[in-house]
Amino acid sequence: VITLASDFGSPYPAAMRGVLCSRTDARLVDVAHDFPRQDVRAAAFWLREVLPTFPPAVHLVVVDPTVGTDRRPIVVVAGEHALVGPDNGVLLPAARALAGDADLACYEIPVEDPASATFHGRDVFAPAAADVHERGIDDVEEAYPTAPDPVDLTFPEATVDGAHARGEVLVVDGFGNVVTNVPGSFLTGRWGDRASVAGRGVPVERTYAAVDRGERLLTVGSHGNVELAVNQGRGDEAFGVEAGSPVEIDLA
Amino acid sequence: VITLASDFGSPYPAAMRGVLCSRTDARLVDVAHDFPRQDVRAAAFWLREVLPTFPPAVHLVVVDPTVGTDRRPIVVVAGEHALVGPDNGVLLPAARALAGDADLACYEIPVEDPASATFHGRDVFAPAAADVHERGIDDVEEAYPTAPDPVDLTFPEATVDGAHARGEVLVVDGFGNVVTNVPGSFLTGRWGDRASVAGRGVPVERTYAAVDRGERLLTVGSHGNVELAVNQGRGDEAFGVEAGSPVEIDLA
Amino acid sequence: VITLASDFGSPYPAAMRGVLCSRTDARLVDVAHDFPRQDVRAAAFWLREVLPTFPPAVHLVVVDPTVGTDRRPIVVVAGEHALVGPDNGVLLPAARALAGDADLACYEIPVEDPASATFHGRDVFAPAAADVHERGIDDVEEAYPTAPDPVDLTFPEATVDGAHARGEVLVVDGFGNVVTNVPGSFLTGRWGDRASVAGRGVPVERTYAAVDRGERLLTVGSHGNVELAVNQGRGDEAFGVEAGSPVEIDLA
Repeated sequence: VITLASDFGSPYPAAMRGVLCSRTDARLVDVAHDFPRQDVRAAAFWLREVLPTFPPAVHLVVVDPTVGTDRRPIVVVAGEHALVGPDNGVLLPAARALAGDADLACYEIPVEDPASATFHGRDVFAPAAADVHERGIDDVEEAYPTAPDPVDLTFPEATVDGAHARGEVLVVDGFGNVVTNVPGSFLTGRWGDRASVAGRGVPVERTYAAVDRGERLLTVGSHGNVELAVNQGRGDEAFGVEAGSPVEIDLA
Repeated sequence: VITLASDFGSPYPAAMRGVLCSRTDARLVDVAHDFPRQDVRAAAFWLREVLPTFPPAVHLVVVDPTVGTDRRPIVVVAGEHALVGPDNGVLLPAARALAGDADLACYEIPVEDPASATFHGRDVFAPAAADVHERGIDDVEEAYPTAPDPVDLTFPEATVDGAHARGEVLVVDGFGNVVTNVPGSFLTGRWGDRASVAGRGVPVERTYAAVDRGERLLTVGSHGNVELAVNQGRGDEAFGVEAGSPVEIDLA
Repeated sequence: VITLASDFGSPYPAAMRGVLCSRTDARLVDVAHDFPRQDVRAAAFWLREVLPTFPPAVHLVVVDPTVGTDRRPIVVVAGEHALVGPDNGVLLPAARALAGDADLACYEIPVEDPASATFHGRDVFAPAAADVHERGIDDVEEAYPTAPDPVDLTFPEATVDGAHARGEVLVVDGFGNVVTNVPGSFLTGRWGDRASVAGRGVPVERTYAAVDRGERLLTVGSHGNVELAVNQGRGDEAFGVEAGSPVEIDLA
């Protein structure tokens, strides 16, 4: 399996699919190509959430605001998975989630003069993903040079103090659900209670449908974090927040 | 073949793809992941139109406004097809279209404690779709408990009386074409005539291109129903209607 | 491999996937289904850019503003590739790019009474693409009647005179990058220089990231043409142009 993820929109991902089809019979599976443009942080978050559902695979990731500069193209080996993409931190959170107990290892992709300075997805990363898939991870570790000190990216941790949590918004999904960094365990056993967010009362519920359409709620999303949401509506607009906004929650 | 359909937008469907890839080598084919959010009726309509083009398959459908409540997760067996999704009616119109002369049978998906209350697509339905695919339908019928009285969903029928039809709008597609429940046979033999819709004259044409760009027309869509359309424009805006709006058509 | 491209949006492409799955085990790969609606020219441009990344394949293309009229459904054989779609020019630029030294040959798809006049993607072109894939190109050339004089489509050529180029905008991509018909060689060796576009100075750079976020630049896109762009912004809005707009560039 080779998965594909990018912020390319359309139709550019098709050029990566074409390159991959030309070089490997691997099963190709799209993760998403509409990550917020050039937003390394949001892509890193979603990849960390989604890639662990996959069996051992090569994951091709191209969210690359500094394409064409001297940032390195790298392969991160995480257990039986390999992640291929730019050395800007986008691969690391997912790699840690995939590696289990294994150590991460990082290799530099050998690049000859690329065909363009603007489309490394097609000219550098897709060929590398096919190469990694065909060689296998053991061979990559012998053939590719080590890439020391890859750029890392971590998400801030929330502070939880009894019934008070202080954190921030990590991402907003396409429906407007607001994913915070407050761990879901903060709400355990409080279903049906009311919390206070920025001074305003909000019910704590297990499901969106527990409140009326258009009403706000606090819940735990599929990622295991506290989510600010509106049943069948946009939580980001109702709560007036965006990625990076501080969030304070008090349980009564 | 396993088909995937949802109102998840992006990137959540990738988690279902990952779960499926982890459990089966079945060919995965996306139907759509941008059904109108939590609109069971619109999804049911499109699935009824599209799924019959597929060979025998498992169809994974997650449009599930009451995720996390006690609505049952079910499998509907329709001839050689199986549909996996929530028991809210979304599966039934397509199941009837797929079954041919076969009777429908409905089974409940055994669920152990799910990993989340908000993402049954990943935690309940995708694993079930893989399981149904790997077992085969005969084994499902032995292994899964029967689910009596599934929630049904039907579309209203139009009243056709000679040259007068009274119906309603079933759905509006992404281009603004207005799909009514008036059967296409109502327009048979009337190509080139004029009809009256809500008191305003509109030509009856076999093709969009039969009228000038921006002009309104009545035609028969690929679904076999009468469609209110605008050549290279939005019929819903021109006719001032939306899903559920009443429609009256008079042929002169 | 069968590739799929259309301006259908969603969920109509799923009906083509269903028809293909019913008739062939070929690998299905989406190119794009969000080409600008009924814009034969834009689709032709992108197909010319993307399809050459694929190995020998059948390419199903449905951008068909005159569906249901007497425009012919055709197969264009281009070396080891076959393109299936309407005879409106959309296939020809890609066919020339795919053919290498081979001559193009054009055949008419035999059509019995189609199930609809509005959805030839499902009823005519997808069955034909499956048939072409299963027969192979040699058999198509024997079995299908020749289609003389297919509708052609060419892109205008820019005029380059020393340090002055006069051309036009071919397409704007989804990010707002403005693709012109001025060949990239016009900028060779001028990285870091300033050019004048419509009388206003703009830096010439190899990469978007060479200028600050929100700043304009001239670069060479992955298609090899001069592109008017804004780093992490929309070039079309900054330069006030759209497809078809004239473009004049002076190098100092």
